[in-house]
This record gives sequence, C-alpha cells and structure tokens, in this order.
Amino acid sequence: MRFSDLLIQLGELQESTPRHLAGDPELSGAAALDQAATGQLSFLEPGHALAAALAGCGASALLIPPDPELQQQATDQGLAWVALANPRLAFAEALDALYPRQRPPAGIHASAVVDPGAAIGPGVHIGAHGVVAAGSRIGAGSILHPGVVIYGDVEVGEGCELHAGAVLHPGSRLAAGCVVHSNAVVGSEGFGFVPTASGWRKMPQTGLVVLEEGVEVGCGSTIDRPSVGETRIGAGTKIDNLVHIGHGVVTGRGCALAAQVGIAGGARLGNGVILAGQVGVANRATIGDRAIASSKSGIHGDVAAGEVVSGYPAIPNRLWLRCSAVFNKLPDMARSLRQLKNQGE
Amino acid sequence: MRFSDLLIQLGELQESTPRHLAGDPELSGAAALDQAATGQLSFLEPGHALAAALAGCGASALLIPPDPELQQQATDQGLAWVALANPRLAFAEALDALYPRQRPPAGIHASAVVDPGAAIGPGVHIGAHGVVAAGSRIGAGSILHPGVVIYGDVEVGEGCELHAGAVLHPGSRLAAGCVVHSNAVVGSEGFGFVPTASGWRKMPQTGLVVLEEGVEVGCGSTIDRPSVGETRIGAGTKIDNLVHIGHGVVTGRGCALAAQVGIAGGARLGNGVILAGQVGVANRATIGDRAIASSKSGIHGDVAAGEVVSGYPAIPNRLWLRCSAVFNKLPDMARSLRQLKNQGE
Amino acid sequence: MRFSDLLIQLGELQESTPRHLAGDPELSGAAALDQAATGQLSFLEPGHALAAALAGCGASALLIPPDPELQQQATDQGLAWVALANPRLAFAEALDALYPRQRPPAGIHASAVVDPGAAIGPGVHIGAHGVVAAGSRIGAGSILHPGVVIYGDVEVGEGCELHAGAVLHPGSRLAAGCVVHSNAVVGSEGFGFVPTASGWRKMPQTGLVVLEEGVEVGCGSTIDRPSVGETRIGAGTKIDNLVHIGHGVVTGRGCALAAQVGIAGGARLGNGVILAGQVGVANRATIGDRAIASSKSGIHGDVAAGEVVSGYPAIPNRLWLRCSAVFNKLPDMARSLRQLKNQGE
Repeated sequence: MRFSDLLIQLGELQESTPRHLAGDPELSGAAALDQAATGQLSFLEPGHALAAALAGCGASALLIPPDPELQQQATDQGLAWVALANPRLAFAEALDALYPRQRPPAGIHASAVVDPGAAIGPGVHIGAHGVVAAGSRIGAGSILHPGVVIYGDVEVGEGCELHAGAVLHPGSRLAAGCVVHSNAVVGSEGFGFVPTASGWRKMPQTGLVVLEEGVEVGCGSTIDRPSVGETRIGAGTKIDNLVHIGHGVVTGRGCALAAQVGIAGGARLGNGVILAGQVGVANRATIGDRAIASSKSGIHGDVAAGEVVSGYPAIPNRLWLRCSAVFNKLPDMARSLRQLKNQGE
Repeated sequence: MRFSDLLIQLGELQESTPRHLAGDPELSGAAALDQAATGQLSFLEPGHALAAALAGCGASALLIPPDPELQQQATDQGLAWVALANPRLAFAEALDALYPRQRPPAGIHASAVVDPGAAIGPGVHIGAHGVVAAGSRIGAGSILHPGVVIYGDVEVGEGCELHAGAVLHPGSRLAAGCVVHSNAVVGSEGFGFVPTASGWRKMPQTGLVVLEEGVEVGCGSTIDRPSVGETRIGAGTKIDNLVHIGHGVVTGRGCALAAQVGIAGGARLGNGVILAGQVGVANRATIGDRAIASSKSGIHGDVAAGEVVSGYPAIPNRLWLRCSAVFNKLPDMARSLRQLKNQGE
Repeated sequence: MRFSDLLIQLGELQESTPRHLAGDPELSGAAALDQAATGQLSFLEPGHALAAALAGCGASALLIPPDPELQQQATDQGLAWVALANPRLAFAEALDALYPRQRPPAGIHASAVVDPGAAIGPGVHIGAHGVVAAGSRIGAGSILHPGVVIYGDVEVGEGCELHAGAVLHPGSRLAAGCVVHSNAVVGSEGFGFVPTASGWRKMPQTGLVVLEEGVEVGCGSTIDRPSVGETRIGAGTKIDNLVHIGHGVVTGRGCALAAQVGIAGGARLGNGVILAGQVGVANRATIGDRAIASSKSGIHGDVAAGEVVSGYPAIPNRLWLRCSAVFNKLPDMARSLRQLKNQGE
C-alpha cells in the first residue's frame, strides 16, 4: 500500500493537514520507531524526545505530531510523513489498513451443534465444534470462532465476536459489538453459599449478566451472574485477561480493567474508571466516575470521583507515595525513637 | 407458583411457623428487596435496618426474621410473609422452587467422543463435543456439559456436574456431587522443575488430585497434581473463579476460597478455613481450622485455628487494622521524629 | 521394575557410585519419604535432617546424598539405596521410568477439523475435536490433545505438546519442545486502546508471540501479542498457571514465573529471573539476570541483576523484612512519639 493510499484511511486527515510524500513509498507493514525498517510505517507522539527519537529512524514513513522543526527534520531524512494531532490514533487506523482482518464467511460449520430451537441471525459465522443451545439468539453478523459454547437462554447482539473456547451461560445478554476473548466465561454462577449446620448450601444464581454495547472481555476472564437482579458492564468498557467480576457488580461506561483485577460481588463502579493490574475491589465498595487505582491496590470503602488511589487499603496516591517512601526508613526511625527514649530516661 | 405452594418447599417451615398469606399471591420470580416488584418474592435478614428496609418494598411476598413488629408492618403493607430463623437459607430454597433447573436428559450426544474403554454410569449426560478417554469412569447421573475433556485415568463420582470446557487430567478423583465450572482444570501437572546445568528439568507429576464429596471448583480455576502423593480438597469445600491450588495442597472440609486465591504447593488448610479474594498462601504454610484471611493477605507461616489475619506478611487482623491506620501518618511521624532529634541536639 | 533396572536410568550413575541392592526389591511406584511403603522408591536431600528423616522410613529403596553414615543407616534398615550428588534430579528420572507416559499415536482424529491449507508434520497427533486453520504449521511429532484450537498464521515447532482447550492465535510462533497446558491462550490481542472522544478505540495487535525452545505455559495462562513487534519468551522459561504476560514483554532464558504472576506490557526480564506467586511487574519495568522477587511483590522500576526484592513497591528483600517487622510495631511507635512530644512541650 502506497503512503498516499494509507493517508486517506486516517480519520483526522484534512486537505490542510501538513504532509510530505517523499516519493510516496510502498508500505508493507508497521513497527515501533526504534525497530522500523524500509517499507515500514511508524509513529512519534508528543511525549517522545522528538528530535532524538527521529534521528536514525529506519522507517519509510511516519505519523508525527504537528511540529514544524520535526517536520523539517523528517523531510531532511528523506522520510514520508504526515503531521496529526493524534498520531497514536492514526497509527491504530493505519494498522487496520496495513493488516486487514479477514472476516470468516457467514455460515455454520458442519461440525457445529446448533439446536433447532436457537435463533441464528443473518450473516453469522459459527466455527468448528461450536455449540448453541435451544432458546438462545445470535445477532446478525456475529462471529463465533471454533469451540464456543452458548448455553440456553443467552442473547448475543449484532456484530459480536466470540473467540475460541468462550462460554456464555444462561442469563447472558450481550449488546451489539461485544467481544469475548478465548476461554472467557460470562454468566457463570456467582459464588454464593449459605452457611448451614451441614455445610455450605448453594444460593441459586438466577439473575442476568448484561454486557452493554461494545464491551470487551479478555481471555480467561469470568463474569458471574447474581442470585437475583443483574451484573452489568457499562457500554464501551474494556476488560483485560484473567479478570474476575463477581455477581451483581455494576460498572459505568468506558471503564478499563487491567489484567487480573478482581471485583467482589455487589461493587459499583462509575463511568470511565480505570483499574490497573491486580487491583482488588471489595464487595459493596463504590468507585466514582473517572477514578483511577494503581496496580495491586485493594479498595474496601468508597473512592470519590476523579480520585487516584494506591495501596492496600487504598489511600490517595500522593499520600501513598509519601508513606511508602517513609516505610523504607522504618528501621532507622525505630532506632532513632529508641535513642530518644533512652535519652529521656 | 402460589406463595402457599412455595412455603412447603422451605425446610425450616413447621405448622407453628408464623405466616400471613395476604391473598396468597402468585409468584413469578424473586428480587432483591429494593428492586422487587409485584409478583416477586424477596427476603429480609436480621442484619438489615428492618423497618426502614421494609417501607416502600414493592414485592408481593417476603421471607422475614421472626420479629412481631416487622410481621405487623408487613401485614399492614398488604404483603404475604413467613417468619423464619434463617430467611437467607429459605430464599435459596425458594429460588430453587421458582427457577427450577432443567436437568439435561441422560445420553451421550452423537458428537461426543467416548472411548469404548471408558466406563459411563447409568443416567449420565455427555453433551456435544465431549471427550472421555479410555480408562476413565463417569459415575451415575453425572452431567458433562458441552466440550468437557476427560483424559484417561480419571474417576468422576455420582451426580457430579462438569461445565463447558472443564478439563480433568489423569489422576483426578472426584467424589460424588462435585461441580467443576467452565474452563476449570483439575489434575494438571504441578509446577515442579529441578535446576540443572542445562536449565529446568521437569519433575514428573504422577500423583492424584482428590476432590472429596460436594467440592465445587470455580470457572478457570486450576488444581495441580503432585509428583507423588496427592492434592486433596476436603468435602464441601467451595472454590471460586480463577483460583490456583498447587501440587500437594491439602484442605480440610467446608473451606471457602474466594476468587483469585493462590495456594502454593504443599500448604495445609484445616476445616472451615475462609480465604477472601486474592489471598496468597506460601508453600508449606499451615492454616488452622476456621481461620479467616481477609482479601489480598499473604500468608507465609502458620495461622492458628480461629485466627483472623490480614496484610502481607499476614498478621492478626486487629493489629493490622491499627498498623494500617498509622501507616497513613508515616510522613507526619517522620517529621515529628526529625524535629525531636533536632531539639535534642 | 527392579531397583537395579531403575539405576541404569539415572544420568548421574557411574560404576563407582555407591549403592546397596538389599535383595534388589521390585518397585511399583514412588512416594514422599514420610509416606513411602513397601515396593516404593523415595529420596532424601542434603537439606533434610537426614538420620531422623530416615528412621522409620517404610520405602523399599532410596535415593540419598553421598553420606557414609547415612548409607550405613540405610543398609542397617534393610533398604536398597544409591548415593548421588543430586537425589532430586535422580528422583525425577526415576519417576519417568516408574510412571512411563503413554504417547498418543500419530494421526488425526476423525472428529478433528484440519484445514487442507494447514501443514501437518509427520508423526503429529491431533486429538478429538481439534481445529487447525489454514496457513498454520504443526511440527513433526507434536501432540495436540482434544479440543485444541489453532487459528491461522500459527507455527508450532517439532515435539511440542498442547493440552486440552489450549488456543493459539495468529502470530504465535512456538519453537521445538514447547508445552502449552490446558486452556492456556497464546497470541491473544494485547490490551491496547486509544482514548478518543467517543470512547476507547482498539489499537490493532498485529505482532508476534515467540516462545523459544522448551518454553512451558501453565493452565489458563495468557500471553498477548503486541500491536507491532513481538512478545518473546526466552528458551527454557517455565510459566505456571493463570499467569498473564502482556503485549511486548520480553523475557530471557530459563526464567520461572509462578502462578498468578502478571507482567504488564513492554516489561523486560533478563535470564534466569524467578518471580514467585502473584508478583506484578509494571509496564516498562526492567529486571536483571537471575533477580528474584518474592510472592506478591509489585515491581515498578528497575531491579538489578542478582537482586532479591520483596514488597510493594518492591525493595531489597532484606530491607523489606526489617521494615515489615517494624510495621507491626507502628502503633507502639506512634504512642512513644506522642509521649516524647508531650514531654518536650
């Protein structure tokens, strides 16, 4: 693909957008700035030490921020370039253009087991060894990769993609455009047991798991259904691998939950909440809009909107940073304290 | 289902149990107290602020604790109710009655691959694309949902339920009534390697994994077999999602292990131990009967029976709470200490 | 198997190696020292309290360290024994001999779906319900247990073993002798999204995941592919269950990553790094050769070669042990400090 052909794929491009074709190189792929070679596209973000990063770059073409000096340098290096406010977003668009995804064709593989009582929309692809039970519906254009298992009483919206080994249990309700990655499980029974004299008695989990539009669930992640009511993941929320979401959790729109996060039953997250890796949220905790928890934080109580927290139990990030710095001096502090006490006696 | 028909499903109900039929409403389902609507059942536990919780309740029928004032209030609100010592347990029974589970019929799906050398008990259901290898036994009445894989040398007791994508490796021994949830793995090779001059050399893992009666293993959880001897999960122990249990671990009866708990090889848990989410237990640690670890605790040494621990390394919960409160004041303490030292000089 | 027949399977055995046949017992299996019974082999390592451990041992034969007193004691107890510098390594070899693994026969199960455009090497076993898509290659002698799914554009080297439910996504490159355990996922899309005014926009993940020779990936673990470039796991690295490795991570050779470790995108590990259970490594962190992190450590910055770190944020292990000991005394310290301040006023 020629650089000029790629440019027209970029959403931000306008007639006035600065660019330099430099012979309009043929592009065969993309790479990180320090690894790019001839025939490859790369990008540079405002955060980089720009001029230094650009020097010696082996790419043929670049997406760069709107910086006249940088543009001149790229031209001097013989590179094709376009200057955009959001080079990273443009790079995402360019990758889609350079590495087009092959959509599997519509149709149900001969080895798949689709119950006559299931409703399969037009254009759906069901791969080898897929299973769809009676009473479930797969929306138009959805893709089920090999080995997906859909129990009964499941609704999958239009244009969803379910990867190999994903399992959807009864009560799962996926809106349009959701992605469930390999071996993830949605709608599994919440961990609810009543203590009795003869041991734990299962509390039946009969509620729903609702994934709103555009939710993405990472590999091996699990989202449980509650005894009654629903577990709900807000539209556009992205969930990484090996995340556990307990029964009755509700998240807002556009949250991002990194790998190995665990959210206990009944917790509430606002919109745009970001939880870094291995964060834990206790049952019934409440996290406000756009709050952020750094990795490994343990959240028990309420986190206010916009707050950044860290540590276990989680406290404001700035305080935690200062406390952690002092933690490393505890042996010295203890010794000083003993000396002061001895002096005082 | 009429309220009066539901009542006879409750194990605690006796002739003398206080109740009020209020027209014996038809019940179509159940809901949490603050979400219940006409035609729904809900419940109220002694822990709630009872009268306040009840006010405005939209349910048609309630399971409530034996509290005369509360009973009167419910009657005044026109609700059907029954008063029981354990409303939560009764709610579990009611959910089973209101949402009866459909047991898949006995039989082996045409697409399943069951080796002639496997022994399949009467009444067993094996779903689509299931696999049972030679030398394994499936006990009477067990249910294998689609896509379950049973390697050779596996024994599954009577009345077990294995969900989609569950995998049982050689050496797995499941007693009656066990449940293995979707994509969980039992009997996988323990993580044992011997360091050699040419790198890690695998220690063969040839032992057993024994799940005693009524054990439940959550989605995506993994329970490893040891090199020799056995990994053993005590009867009635319930394991949540994404839990890892290393080779040679032994737990007592009736433990509850919450999501993302990790137990390293050789650790020992007594009866009734409760580990909250993301707890880690080091290899060879020993935890006494009915001990509790709060979420994210890291347990290295021994925990006495009945103890409640927190933190990392785990210490008694009350001490940890006090220490954590002081942790947040470390910057102030450091400053005070510096001032005192300066005064003393 | 006779003890004498077993001996010749041990790599360390030489003519001069001390041994005692004691009637050359027939061995039917192996067990831990305190559980071994007649007909079983066990072993004793230099680390044990040797004489005490040996007393009362019920085994028929032992692998022991080269210690003349111990040898005499074993002979006096009527046990067969051989004395070796590395009894644990010999025990691993003995387990392979006593419990030989049955290799599934070459061939493709009738229920497997192998695209004509896939290249399957000689001697490959593909189990029931396996799937191999067009454009992928399976190296000679590799074993795919039931239900493995190989997407397109995957290369599996010679002599690999993929367990039930494992999934390999496009861009996965496995060198010879790799093992992927049940329900693990390799080559899944990295968690990359660009924030936009209308929500998270997926950054396409088009790079490779390279597993070098002899890498082992535990059950349910996930290794993501990057947007560009590669994620690379060094030769001989062993990964336990439920580990997450983010996009673009590079590890050296011979690392060991215990269960539930999480490594965020772009982190770099040297050779021989050992991460204990539930350790977290932040994106772009760098860990030097042979560094060790104890369980639950959270690593943000750089760890020097050979360093042992603990805690969160991770600090040198010895310092952390001392600080943790003082942590438990924080309430006392705070009280002492208040008293000193009051005295000073």
